[in-house]
Amino acid sequence: MKGSIRISEIFGPTVQGEGPLIGHPTVFVRTGGCDYRCRWCDTLYAVLPEFRDEWTLMTSAEILARVEHLAGSEPVLVSLSGGNPAIQPLAPLIALGHRTGYTFALETQGSVAQPWFAALEWLILSPKPPSSGMATDWQALADCVAAAASGPRCAVKVAVFDDDDYAYARLVARRYPALPVYLQVGNPAPLMTHAGPGNEEADVDDLMRRFRWLVDKVAADRWFTATVLPQLHVLAWGNKRGV
Amino acid sequence: MKGSIRISEIFGPTVQGEGPLIGHPTVFVRTGGCDYRCRWCDTLYAVLPEFRDEWTLMTSAEILARVEHLAGSEPVLVSLSGGNPAIQPLAPLIALGHRTGYTFALETQGSVAQPWFAALEWLILSPKPPSSGMATDWQALADCVAAAASGPRCAVKVAVFDDDDYAYARLVARRYPALPVYLQVGNPAPLMTHAGPGNEEADVDDLMRRFRWLVDKVAADRWFTATVLPQLHVLAWGNKRGV
Repeated sequence: MKGSIRISEIFGPTVQGEGPLIGHPTVFVRTGGCDYRCRWCDTLYAVLPEFRDEWTLMTSAEILARVEHLAGSEPVLVSLSGGNPAIQPLAPLIALGHRTGYTFALETQGSVAQPWFAALEWLILSPKPPSSGMATDWQALADCVAAAASGPRCAVKVAVFDDDDYAYARLVARRYPALPVYLQVGNPAPLMTHAGPGNEEADVDDLMRRFRWLVDKVAADRWFTATVLPQLHVLAWGNKRGV
Repeated sequence: MKGSIRISEIFGPTVQGEGPLIGHPTVFVRTGGCDYRCRWCDTLYAVLPEFRDEWTLMTSAEILARVEHLAGSEPVLVSLSGGNPAIQPLAPLIALGHRTGYTFALETQGSVAQPWFAALEWLILSPKPPSSGMATDWQALADCVAAAASGPRCAVKVAVFDDDDYAYARLVARRYPALPVYLQVGNPAPLMTHAGPGNEEADVDDLMRRFRWLVDKVAADRWFTATVLPQLHVLAWGNKRGV
């Protein structure tokens, strides 16, 4: 049977480096293809069509077999990422994994809602702030929140590079006061850029300066319901793939 | 009225750097005095009797007024830390704070149980592994878990410096399978040591090496229910006080 899910990479077990599941062991399933072109995208190899040759069409059973092999058949949290995993037909994979105890967290920008979001354990909506160059489709984001209403734990994560991004994150938080909001330190030096190769080394000093700036903003604004986090995997492994 | 709570420092708002509330805005209330003498203690100024002159006896009302001043009267999570905050009479402070919307997370080694643990929003039990030089009183730890049974969210956090500490963390996890376990990267270079001044700069490379080691251990053992985290405040601010 020819697979229908476009896969960029499957790797782990490692720990989730971002958001509400930071530090939690997981296997990543990264899909290929995206409806966005964020300026600072840190996974262009899973986004741009010129990497399509590196992507593999896989069935749900093939994906789960690969996850099980990596995890030693011990049920683990599967992180569905991309690209935008919401544009892939992932419902059968989630159903299959649930039968043997696997759990699923999906992260998406919230541009495409799917009814099967309700089957996830976690939905992390990561709408893109002004620095990305993308415009938010607020109706699509609302549809994503609604699709998850009866199912997964839902959280919002916003990458913050500057004051405009911070204002955007506040706006999202005001629209969805019931959802926990994670402010993520922006990483301005990803592995590859739209202009070509980036830097495999992370500038930890710069990232920590950005983190302190964001903590100061939140403290000054008494925004005590936000959570401020860096990308832990970037601090630990730099901008490398597969960690 | 003379206060009865021994306070080492009150500071914030900043973000929690450790455990289940990592990245969450909080004001720290650090009590003075401890029944433990961990070899690698990173807050000796709140532990050793020779720092007693720096501690202040405060009333619950005085402490809450200080927290409210720092937080701009916006209810915030209060992190009760030490030393060992469990040996201070904190029940009236928690009751007082609850009246105006403040929430409370207490971290203790679990050597002294208090009935008022039930009033907390979070109880983080941090039993000390072999590298600390302390012996665990398992009955006292069980009493702490029991005291929290009907109230707060409860989690276990264990600092891991070496293989023996890791084995100890696994033992704790087996004893309390229902509690989430956080493995914390040990910091071998605190601000001050039992032998004298330590280092205000953190060795981030060493801490991240230790983090990767711990992730590898958890992945190799398929210990997928553990969470692995560094001390975020040490990465961001080094071993400084008051951040």
